[in-house]
Amino acid sequence: MSRTLGDLAALVGGELKGPAHLVISGIAAVDQATPQDITFITGKRYARLAETSQAAAFIVSPEYAEMPRPLIVVPHPYLAYARIAALFMPPAKRWPGISEQACLGEGVELGEEVSISPFVCLGDGVKVGDRSTIMAGCVIGQEVVIGSDALIYPNVTILDRCWVGNRVIIHSGAVIGGDGFGFVPTPQGFHKIPQLGVVVIEDDVEIGANCTIDRAALGETRIGRGVKLDNLVQVAHNVTIGEHSIIVAQAGIAGSSKLGKQVALGGQAGVVGHIELQDGVQVGAQAGVTHSIPAGQVVLGSPARPHREFLNLNAHFSKLPEMYQRLKNLEERLQQLTAALSKETES
Amino acid sequence: MSRTLGDLAALVGGELKGPAHLVISGIAAVDQATPQDITFITGKRYARLAETSQAAAFIVSPEYAEMPRPLIVVPHPYLAYARIAALFMPPAKRWPGISEQACLGEGVELGEEVSISPFVCLGDGVKVGDRSTIMAGCVIGQEVVIGSDALIYPNVTILDRCWVGNRVIIHSGAVIGGDGFGFVPTPQGFHKIPQLGVVVIEDDVEIGANCTIDRAALGETRIGRGVKLDNLVQVAHNVTIGEHSIIVAQAGIAGSSKLGKQVALGGQAGVVGHIELQDGVQVGAQAGVTHSIPAGQVVLGSPARPHREFLNLNAHFSKLPEMYQRLKNLEERLQQLTAALSKETES
Amino acid sequence: MSRTLGDLAALVGGELKGPAHLVISGIAAVDQATPQDITFITGKRYARLAETSQAAAFIVSPEYAEMPRPLIVVPHPYLAYARIAALFMPPAKRWPGISEQACLGEGVELGEEVSISPFVCLGDGVKVGDRSTIMAGCVIGQEVVIGSDALIYPNVTILDRCWVGNRVIIHSGAVIGGDGFGFVPTPQGFHKIPQLGVVVIEDDVEIGANCTIDRAALGETRIGRGVKLDNLVQVAHNVTIGEHSIIVAQAGIAGSSKLGKQVALGGQAGVVGHIELQDGVQVGAQAGVTHSIPAGQVVLGSPARPHREFLNLNAHFSKLPEMYQRLKNLEERLQQLTAALSKETES
Repeated sequence: MSRTLGDLAALVGGELKGPAHLVISGIAAVDQATPQDITFITGKRYARLAETSQAAAFIVSPEYAEMPRPLIVVPHPYLAYARIAALFMPPAKRWPGISEQACLGEGVELGEEVSISPFVCLGDGVKVGDRSTIMAGCVIGQEVVIGSDALIYPNVTILDRCWVGNRVIIHSGAVIGGDGFGFVPTPQGFHKIPQLGVVVIEDDVEIGANCTIDRAALGETRIGRGVKLDNLVQVAHNVTIGEHSIIVAQAGIAGSSKLGKQVALGGQAGVVGHIELQDGVQVGAQAGVTHSIPAGQVVLGSPARPHREFLNLNAHFSKLPEMYQRLKNLEERLQQLTAALSKETES
Repeated sequence: MSRTLGDLAALVGGELKGPAHLVISGIAAVDQATPQDITFITGKRYARLAETSQAAAFIVSPEYAEMPRPLIVVPHPYLAYARIAALFMPPAKRWPGISEQACLGEGVELGEEVSISPFVCLGDGVKVGDRSTIMAGCVIGQEVVIGSDALIYPNVTILDRCWVGNRVIIHSGAVIGGDGFGFVPTPQGFHKIPQLGVVVIEDDVEIGANCTIDRAALGETRIGRGVKLDNLVQVAHNVTIGEHSIIVAQAGIAGSSKLGKQVALGGQAGVVGHIELQDGVQVGAQAGVTHSIPAGQVVLGSPARPHREFLNLNAHFSKLPEMYQRLKNLEERLQQLTAALSKETES
Repeated sequence: MSRTLGDLAALVGGELKGPAHLVISGIAAVDQATPQDITFITGKRYARLAETSQAAAFIVSPEYAEMPRPLIVVPHPYLAYARIAALFMPPAKRWPGISEQACLGEGVELGEEVSISPFVCLGDGVKVGDRSTIMAGCVIGQEVVIGSDALIYPNVTILDRCWVGNRVIIHSGAVIGGDGFGFVPTPQGFHKIPQLGVVVIEDDVEIGANCTIDRAALGETRIGRGVKLDNLVQVAHNVTIGEHSIIVAQAGIAGSSKLGKQVALGGQAGVVGHIELQDGVQVGAQAGVTHSIPAGQVVLGSPARPHREFLNLNAHFSKLPEMYQRLKNLEERLQQLTAALSKETES
């Protein structure tokens, strides 16, 4: 799995500065690279480490084009790194074809080169597109549709009638299409509201390990094209997440809320139900969003406030003991002044 | 799966206003209903949408009984919707009987019409009540008892000796009866405390996807009758949750804490260990409860405070920059006043 | 499974005060013990309950050595309890040998007395050490190495090339080695960064149910010796957790952060990426750590602050309405004083 530096430069359309025939057999972080590895520089902090790095070669931006080492110079070193790293990825072995230890329902339709591992259960009427991979222990409910080139890691559950697009990646333990959390309180206890809807996951989505995405009460819960969910994210029923949004680990979105395109939720952030976060909204880690947010706004804190307001409030919060002391001083000085004046008047 | 409007009205004991023979073939949200669907109105916001709705008929409260459309009038439209929705639920297929690809231990006792899917493991001495369903990939430990009409979704794990009541629903990926988190610190590291207890889940409980409910160190962790847990909820060892409580997604309850009846925990809320939340306590989303709370109290924030106190503090928090400025102004004015007086005295 | 009190005292090296031949057949909490059980006292609160306890005998510290009941007196009753509880643990049945319903890849190497349950998948080249147990529904990726005496509960997923040490316990639903969350934003959407690294779990670690520990982008994510993770914990790519650290449920650690030895994270706490928590740092429940923390410091709140500072700020926060009122009073008094003085001057 070795490549020459020249090949790698060509792959990423970069400028080669150094011996084209230099053999590269791996990729590693700048401080861990061996003399067989290529590495990359994405900022000053890493540039300093480069001096002592044993790496054979460096992927750098034009800013570092004069480094006296073998280089590939590109406008976006991080993207070039991602592309080159893909070459050095150890090959994952797919189960060849359909395991005899899988269980297929009636009317299952599988595309070409589909891989179904042992202990996978496909319900009646499931459809899986070409070259998709379903790893061991996955359970796919009836009439689920999975697109082409999808990659479903082990022990994923996708429940009845949900829809998964092309090139979708779902990591282990994720549950797609569990019942939304809907109950009517009655004197006899909570009466369950049947959850008739589905989950729709559009193309190029990636869903992290142990995420839970609930089916809609009616209609659909929809994860837009290119959305990336980190691990342990909760998406409640009837939520819509717009294209190319990104949700960091352990964040949660309550029922019927709507996220626009390119929204970003930080880790452990929460969004209450029935609100809208318009395009480009950014929510800080651990923030709690309690009302709709206009396009492009950055919010922080719980309850969430606009970014500048939060920072200003937080700075003042740090001054509270000082403010308290100054308040006490003022009271005393005013007291003294009043006393002095009253004495003066008396005298 | 079509019904007449008259049948639906009779089912929910509602007043029919419109043609009894009108055929209804589905149920949908007011803004998505087709001319074949029934829908429902639960507030002014939805009533406004009704004017342009294509729905064939509406489930409404007496307040909207004069709407010039086919109606079913009931005191609680939301409950009537839940009942009617159940009729239109697409039938989920149960595995017929016991799959040959399941693995049953010694002394397993199964009731009538039990459904055991492929790749299910039942440990020695497991008992499952009549009409209960255990879906693919579930692993049930030895001597677990599951009641009647229980529904265990795929890839659930229930560990040794736990007890699951009648009509309990457990969603995919939930883990019932993992070890409680108990260690004794020693100079050599943490010494594990064996977790000898069990989890008891009473009748009519629903447990969300990827929840974790730990077994007790000694005795039991108990989830009371009718309790509903949303997804990704953590219940630590020796916790007790009283009847008809409701725990929203990603909330967590630390060890030995006791929740009374009809307690509500908001999403991502946390409760520390060894405290008591009495009957009817309500905890806001992302709140952090650090001490026991008396019956009926509503608490918000982290650390959690009574509802009104929190709102008052939060309102004052927003005024911090203004307060700081007013404090500075006061200091200046007092300074000026003092200076003026001292000048006056001097003169 | 009965023991005499004398045997139990000898086992924990405690002083026996009472009849050596007293038969003990279980262990229970002080308020739930039957006359056949031994119990333990770990503080005044429990000492009071001892008076009415039906327990046959008590494990106590020297402080309680004069209690007029059968006793085992030890310096650390909690540790003695942990050791005695292990005796009364109901035996968990291991699958005898390798199930015929498991699926083993090529070149799998299993040590002596390994237990592999049904519906387990071991990828090519997996190595499992002596006496390790892999329960039903686990999926172990290719070239994974698992040490000796490891215990992998049902439905765990360990992905390719990860490394699990000796005596490691992994609870159900945990996912070890899912892809780290790394993307390069491009005008066409997020470009996935291949995650080439692995997860290394050192000896004596325990991982809670439904935890997610991501593989490194390059290099490794490392969980140090003796670390204990509670349930639903998120550990992002390239994180390092030092020896004997403890992470409570639902906490999360973002990418590339480094925790020293004996660090403690409270429940639902969050740590941002690329920072360092040095040895012995303690983080409160729900805290949000946004920058590196020096050794031994205790931090609370979101954003996290040193313990005393947080408590001081929080105390002042509670006084905000009072401060506001005092500020208003000051303004009025100063106004009155100024008015009075100006009148005086005029007069």
